[in-house]
Amino acid sequence: MPAHAVAVDVGGTTIKAGRVDATGQLTRARRVPTPRDIPALVEAIGTLVRELAEPGDAVGVVVPGIVDEATGTAVLSVNLGWRDVPLRTLLVEDLGRDVTFGHDVRAGALAESVWGVGGDLLFVPVGTGIAAALVLDGRVRGTGWAGEIGMLTVSDPDGGGPVVLESVASAAGIARRYAARAGVAVDGADAVVEAADGGDLDAIAVLGDGMDALGPALADAVALLGPVPIVVGGGLAGGGESVFGPLREAITRRLGERPASGVIAARLGPWAGCLGAGAFAMGLSTSWAEEGVEP
Amino acid sequence: MPAHAVAVDVGGTTIKAGRVDATGQLTRARRVPTPRDIPALVEAIGTLVRELAEPGDAVGVVVPGIVDEATGTAVLSVNLGWRDVPLRTLLVEDLGRDVTFGHDVRAGALAESVWGVGGDLLFVPVGTGIAAALVLDGRVRGTGWAGEIGMLTVSDPDGGGPVVLESVASAAGIARRYAARAGVAVDGADAVVEAADGGDLDAIAVLGDGMDALGPALADAVALLGPVPIVVGGGLAGGGESVFGPLREAITRRLGERPASGVIAARLGPWAGCLGAGAFAMGLSTSWAEEGVEP
Repeated sequence: MPAHAVAVDVGGTTIKAGRVDATGQLTRARRVPTPRDIPALVEAIGTLVRELAEPGDAVGVVVPGIVDEATGTAVLSVNLGWRDVPLRTLLVEDLGRDVTFGHDVRAGALAESVWGVGGDLLFVPVGTGIAAALVLDGRVRGTGWAGEIGMLTVSDPDGGGPVVLESVASAAGIARRYAARAGVAVDGADAVVEAADGGDLDAIAVLGDGMDALGPALADAVALLGPVPIVVGGGLAGGGESVFGPLREAITRRLGERPASGVIAARLGPWAGCLGAGAFAMGLSTSWAEEGVEP
Repeated sequence: MPAHAVAVDVGGTTIKAGRVDATGQLTRARRVPTPRDIPALVEAIGTLVRELAEPGDAVGVVVPGIVDEATGTAVLSVNLGWRDVPLRTLLVEDLGRDVTFGHDVRAGALAESVWGVGGDLLFVPVGTGIAAALVLDGRVRGTGWAGEIGMLTVSDPDGGGPVVLESVASAAGIARRYAARAGVAVDGADAVVEAADGGDLDAIAVLGDGMDALGPALADAVALLGPVPIVVGGGLAGGGESVFGPLREAITRRLGERPASGVIAARLGPWAGCLGAGAFAMGLSTSWAEEGVEP
């Protein structure tokens, strides 16, 4: 197993890259803008890897959207305009070395499991959108559009027709709904959380609507899987009790009498995906043993 | 790996037992009433095993309720009045041989994965209650109260307060709600399905309410895990399009634009749990390799 990896997390606006060791220490961190076309993207990633890598380092690259790990394909990214891009093959050709290719949210979940919160968990980044990734029995689960919970249909809290979950519960959706309701422009969900902390009833209501919509989707996973901790990442991770209180209540309401899972903040912050790219490339997991039910 | 197992499925009213081979063939099938006290239960299981077992056979016993496979404990069965019964230890002492101990629904899921529908799946028996068990990456997942989705809280379709999912969507709940609505006593959900097949609007409405309540819980699992097939077992498995049509619609409504998972009937019928007890005892799984995401 390589002791270091060069890790690259391709985001909607920024590529984050660095060199990660087996304890999760990140060095030589870099940020560059994400190019809009594929040849320029491959060149940008290649330049970063050549700059950062030492001989023997593994290389891990993760991207957003719908990812097929088995074929190394970026199947779909609406934000970046990708469809069926064989990105791993393109990178291997450019670099002349092996590349581990994966999904940014599943990478973040792995990093939280190995170096952050620890153990099995349901990682739920709540930012511009909402996604989820599951670490179960020590391994990241799912591929393709697994984890795209932000597109689940929920009731519009304003009484209109059905809407997608992330329009109500994402950080972006919360900021937008608060601005519409309070008639005040806000600079993201942080401002809504701050207002709720100060007792602003519109902010409390908008955060409550969001967590009422998000809670059942998470509770249903817990009912099926057992009490796996829910690890909230992204922009709302720092929201404190104004976010976590209503979310716990909504989960408990759906679960009924069962003990609710813990709902906790992610530990690794915005570099979790990059760290996870390194963890994937080094072949790390929480548990090497297969641990399904073996009665 | 043993080539045969004696398999025992302890139900609320009946114990089913038999001898299972590695291809899922069941021979020497037996049914006896389930005793109400633990010493009599241990004796009844012991008698069945001594009668059915050949030298070298594995022994598998599965029970309903909340089961801790790791300690071999029947943690809770409301129907059978159990709490924290160290059943595996009691059986090992009685039989003087190894016993594999597990959960009836997780056993049914394993049997469907190994010998029935095949592969990864979400097994959802809908009968007196509603439960679920997941086979993911070739292994049964979860322990304890994992899978107790019947106790999720849903809106009362009659407009009352929140109710538990199984009061609306279980076979028993469907029969009860139809009887109340149509003013006709019915002998279980089969009669409601038959009425719906014949165009009875009350039956169609009651089945629709049930599947509208069940669908989102299953859709949420699919959104998280990816398109794992949903395998409906129990009393509603034979419900045909009067059940599967509304269930597919409810799942699709919650999932939004994604391709819905297949919703199909279980293949193994009421002996799935017994077969699965044998599969557990023989150490069978769909996949021996660990297959979490390895990009």
